[in-house]
Amino acid sequence: MVMENNNYIGIDFGGTNIKIGCFSIDMNPVRDRPPLAAVRHQGCLASNGMKPLWKTSIPTDAQMGPTAVIDRMVDTIKEMAGKKNTLFETIKAVGIGAPGPAKYTEGIIIKCANLPKFTNVPISKMLKDKLSKPVILENDANAACYGEFVAGAGKNIKNMVFFTLGTGIGGGIISDGKLLRGSDGNAAELGHIIIQINGRLCTCGQRGCGEAYASATNTAKRATEAIEAGGKSSLEAVLKKNGQITCKDVYDHLAKGDELAKKITDETAEVLAVLCVNALHYTEPEKIVFAGGMIAAGKPLLDRIKFYFNQHIWKIKQEDTVEICFATVGEDAGIIGAAALAREL
Amino acid sequence: MVMENNNYIGIDFGGTNIKIGCFSIDMNPVRDRPPLAAVRHQGCLASNGMKPLWKTSIPTDAQMGPTAVIDRMVDTIKEMAGKKNTLFETIKAVGIGAPGPAKYTEGIIIKCANLPKFTNVPISKMLKDKLSKPVILENDANAACYGEFVAGAGKNIKNMVFFTLGTGIGGGIISDGKLLRGSDGNAAELGHIIIQINGRLCTCGQRGCGEAYASATNTAKRATEAIEAGGKSSLEAVLKKNGQITCKDVYDHLAKGDELAKKITDETAEVLAVLCVNALHYTEPEKIVFAGGMIAAGKPLLDRIKFYFNQHIWKIKQEDTVEICFATVGEDAGIIGAAALAREL
Repeated sequence: MVMENNNYIGIDFGGTNIKIGCFSIDMNPVRDRPPLAAVRHQGCLASNGMKPLWKTSIPTDAQMGPTAVIDRMVDTIKEMAGKKNTLFETIKAVGIGAPGPAKYTEGIIIKCANLPKFTNVPISKMLKDKLSKPVILENDANAACYGEFVAGAGKNIKNMVFFTLGTGIGGGIISDGKLLRGSDGNAAELGHIIIQINGRLCTCGQRGCGEAYASATNTAKRATEAIEAGGKSSLEAVLKKNGQITCKDVYDHLAKGDELAKKITDETAEVLAVLCVNALHYTEPEKIVFAGGMIAAGKPLLDRIKFYFNQHIWKIKQEDTVEICFATVGEDAGIIGAAALAREL
Repeated sequence: MVMENNNYIGIDFGGTNIKIGCFSIDMNPVRDRPPLAAVRHQGCLASNGMKPLWKTSIPTDAQMGPTAVIDRMVDTIKEMAGKKNTLFETIKAVGIGAPGPAKYTEGIIIKCANLPKFTNVPISKMLKDKLSKPVILENDANAACYGEFVAGAGKNIKNMVFFTLGTGIGGGIISDGKLLRGSDGNAAELGHIIIQINGRLCTCGQRGCGEAYASATNTAKRATEAIEAGGKSSLEAVLKKNGQITCKDVYDHLAKGDELAKKITDETAEVLAVLCVNALHYTEPEKIVFAGGMIAAGKPLLDRIKFYFNQHIWKIKQEDTVEICFATVGEDAGIIGAAALAREL
């Protein structure tokens, strides 16, 4: 039996896969069950870390409906707990990160484009009834943000802003050592901050959101549109051959010196930089952290974000305190964060 | 002697005047000195209120320099405390709201356009040395936000966003019942959220800030510019007669049916509405509260902000939960908030 009584389950509930992990959160033996924020600030999580006991991934198959999907989650947890010698009884609580919009405080998924048949699903209650463990529902980006905070770039700071760059742009905010949730758990929708009034249409229905320009999907889309409008680019051959352009294609052709790729990726970086300026003025973080598939673009992306940040930030105060960087935890941030948040229960 | 041992001083340190107030904060006798957030949530401040004992205002005369100005503050507090029968000894702590940028956590005013000779002034330490009381320095808009939170539109809620509309646009954020300060007390610079990349130049050096369009000063300025560019308006006569147009003039002429005033004030309302959309996506408040001289424009301003908010907000979730309203506390919000924050010391 491993680390009895201090084990927590983190679930990353995505449209394609459900990732599940079990972690033991080491405690200072002198201080039994202090609040998580206190643990964080004593450096316990930072120094002792969260020990991963096991993790797994199952297909979501959302079309099978909530009951079947949740049953498979429960079965998987029980099976893995048995197989990995972490007694089911040692699991104290479960954290689940799921896409919004949701009534997070009530543990209800309202609806989600990537989860058909999940409409008004009281997922926390359903899991709790079947597992007989406390369950906390969080926004998936918030959970990943918290994972990065406790185990990655956010170690040793108290204020952080987190962006995930993928199909869309997700966000998370740590303020004074705590996840900023808002009145109903829907805070930090950082992809939907409007940076251009009446600008480009976003899938959310708003115009001029950062996401409408600078997500991986929209970076690729703007490149395609530019070529279709007659722009000259080495990406034209990719479009003809594959029928589409990906964000990776755009950065690959930037590396090869393509001018159109340069223009498109610069616009992405400029929009992300303005999101950073705004994030700084909202919650004044010590670090702004980018995560998600798109950070594979590496230094050419990060350097241009920093360049445009320095162009756009105000001049009345020297902003040498905020660090803009990439996430370090990787794809397990969601399960780590969800498990760490379950610690609050 | 009034309310011995529970009196707090709030100072609103402006470029023209220094307002000083003394408040007794009623306590639940069973719970001696709980943290302020706890007091707030128990409804003590809301139900028992903060009792104003006295208030006064003195000219700032910043050009006399920090030492002289601070000496006058101290003399005024001592004199008023004596005169109003609130013994100096009963004052527990002092809160001071001052314009930024500053190192709030260190209690140092770095510099301020409206306070010449105040460069790198350790105002908290100077006041503390002379008064022998704990002193807390806060951003002036944050202090006013907190005043509105404890005594006005923010009663009975836990998440609030606050805008002051005047020469500039100031801001404050209450998250989960607490003032959101950021890493160095400079959070919630809500006037400097960029809503138009590479847009109108702001006095802060950025382009496209909300303040550059929608402050009282810039509303008046855009009207002047539109007329100088050949726009037809009944405001033309005002400009000729007075050599300038004020924000009040613009709203007065809106009431008289002037088309250019309608266009200018609609742009102001649209920018403020987009600031509300962004505020909702950042911290998901229950209320967004507007304060400052410009709210004298009344219903025509508030109704158009709400109209544009409904135009710009996303459609993927019904946003019926956020209330957009005007502040109710008025010009004492700064001293009330500063005193209430001093309670944390």
